[in-house]
Amino acid sequence: MTGVLVNGQSNDTLSVFDRGLHYGDGVFETLKVVDGQVVLLEQHLQRLQMGCERLRIPQPPVEALVRDINTLAKAENKAVIKILVTRGAGGRGYRMPKSITSNRIVICYEFPHFPPDNYRQGVKIRLCDGRVSPNTALAGIKHLNRLEQVLARSEWQDESIAEGLMMDPQGYIIEGTMSNVFLVSRGRLLTPDLTSCGVAGIMRQQVLDTAQDLGINFDIRSVQIEDLLTANEIFLTNSVIDIWPVRVIEGIPNRRHGSIEYQIGPITEQIMGTLYRGCS
Amino acid sequence: MTGVLVNGQSNDTLSVFDRGLHYGDGVFETLKVVDGQVVLLEQHLQRLQMGCERLRIPQPPVEALVRDINTLAKAENKAVIKILVTRGAGGRGYRMPKSITSNRIVICYEFPHFPPDNYRQGVKIRLCDGRVSPNTALAGIKHLNRLEQVLARSEWQDESIAEGLMMDPQGYIIEGTMSNVFLVSRGRLLTPDLTSCGVAGIMRQQVLDTAQDLGINFDIRSVQIEDLLTANEIFLTNSVIDIWPVRVIEGIPNRRHGSIEYQIGPITEQIMGTLYRGCS
Repeated sequence: MTGVLVNGQSNDTLSVFDRGLHYGDGVFETLKVVDGQVVLLEQHLQRLQMGCERLRIPQPPVEALVRDINTLAKAENKAVIKILVTRGAGGRGYRMPKSITSNRIVICYEFPHFPPDNYRQGVKIRLCDGRVSPNTALAGIKHLNRLEQVLARSEWQDESIAEGLMMDPQGYIIEGTMSNVFLVSRGRLLTPDLTSCGVAGIMRQQVLDTAQDLGINFDIRSVQIEDLLTANEIFLTNSVIDIWPVRVIEGIPNRRHGSIEYQIGPITEQIMGTLYRGCS
Repeated sequence: MTGVLVNGQSNDTLSVFDRGLHYGDGVFETLKVVDGQVVLLEQHLQRLQMGCERLRIPQPPVEALVRDINTLAKAENKAVIKILVTRGAGGRGYRMPKSITSNRIVICYEFPHFPPDNYRQGVKIRLCDGRVSPNTALAGIKHLNRLEQVLARSEWQDESIAEGLMMDPQGYIIEGTMSNVFLVSRGRLLTPDLTSCGVAGIMRQQVLDTAQDLGINFDIRSVQIEDLLTANEIFLTNSVIDIWPVRVIEGIPNRRHGSIEYQIGPITEQIMGTLYRGCS
């Protein structure tokens, strides 16, 4: 842990009246720092702004946010920065108070250790029982209501399992607990449609942009377990891990041994090669 | 505002690393204080315990909670106490940390002013556009993921509207943003089934227990807009308001003027009479 700024001040506490605590009434971003520079800062700030607009949270001044981020990032070789913006402190009850100042919290964490094999050989993941609820008003936003992810992540303790895939109540694959998911099937890239739930990841968009640049066709649509069974390659994305190819998915219902195995294929390698040159 | 205790200490701040803030990873209770006494304390503590168990949050010691509550309540003529229990501070990421101490926050608020006519003549409410998401893992628990309620409550500014009813995505009536709902139809009481979403209110249970005592038949089942149209009486419940009869529901689709009107009927009066003698 290497620093916290609350509204620009060095501080590691927040009012107990903050609506982020009472209602999860806020949004967040998780960014990677490499050599004192924040990766894809502009994109993260844009999504934060979009989330604030959707939830009608008064936006913190962008200059102030950028200053906070740079203050914490500049001395870091490799780190993770988390930004939280809450509606602010005040109001008993759900009603949005008329005059309220949002709170911005910027936290710099040590970069987590990921086994190098996660990138070279791919990761083992599982299909979670816990579902992600559809709600178009909240879909795509990285908001602070994350109990579904906390519960899904608590389904396994096995350290060799790197992530869990979550379905919606109808059984459509939506995302990982902390990542987006891509499938490659017959040379085409496929990622779940997030119109009704899920977080629209910055790295997910980077992958889609990269696919476009490379001339790889892609589909954004409903994804079912059947699609996992027929896929040739699978990978996960987020802004901290970048891309992890998937080697095994466990917990597949009605499947011998309950698991599916994959190779790291040419499209995953092509996208990883391009993106790693570009942004880490 | 008349006092805050964080883990028993007078304090109005909390760690910025608290998982209640980051993920809404916690539960809460809202209690009424009358003449220094907390109303239905035992029932609230039981639900808090049930919520902690369901979310696997280490329970704060009950004696300590009761001590905190009484410390704040004893000097109050009429007040509202809110208890928040979060999983505690720590862990970047959704994974529940192995060793973590939950945080208990007890806040005493001034009692809100409710117009006496809310009780005597009933309230005007509306049917909200915002939906409450089904998730059996979270159904019934008073957890801290409340963005759906914040958004629904933001749909109206008209001070004459006291509450909004929320439906699930399929159009079944579930609850108010801050209350449970009861219908009376042909002499029977009816309240929505909360197996897949909604908060199982303490006052809701009091009403069901009272109905049982009074020999009023009741059903707990799916409730549709059609049921609102055919109901003779409607009322809302929560631990702070107790019971508000409903006079008008606005925003009903495919309905002349979009509204339905009700009288305060005999069953509502019978239950109000019995409960108000019993617990406020």
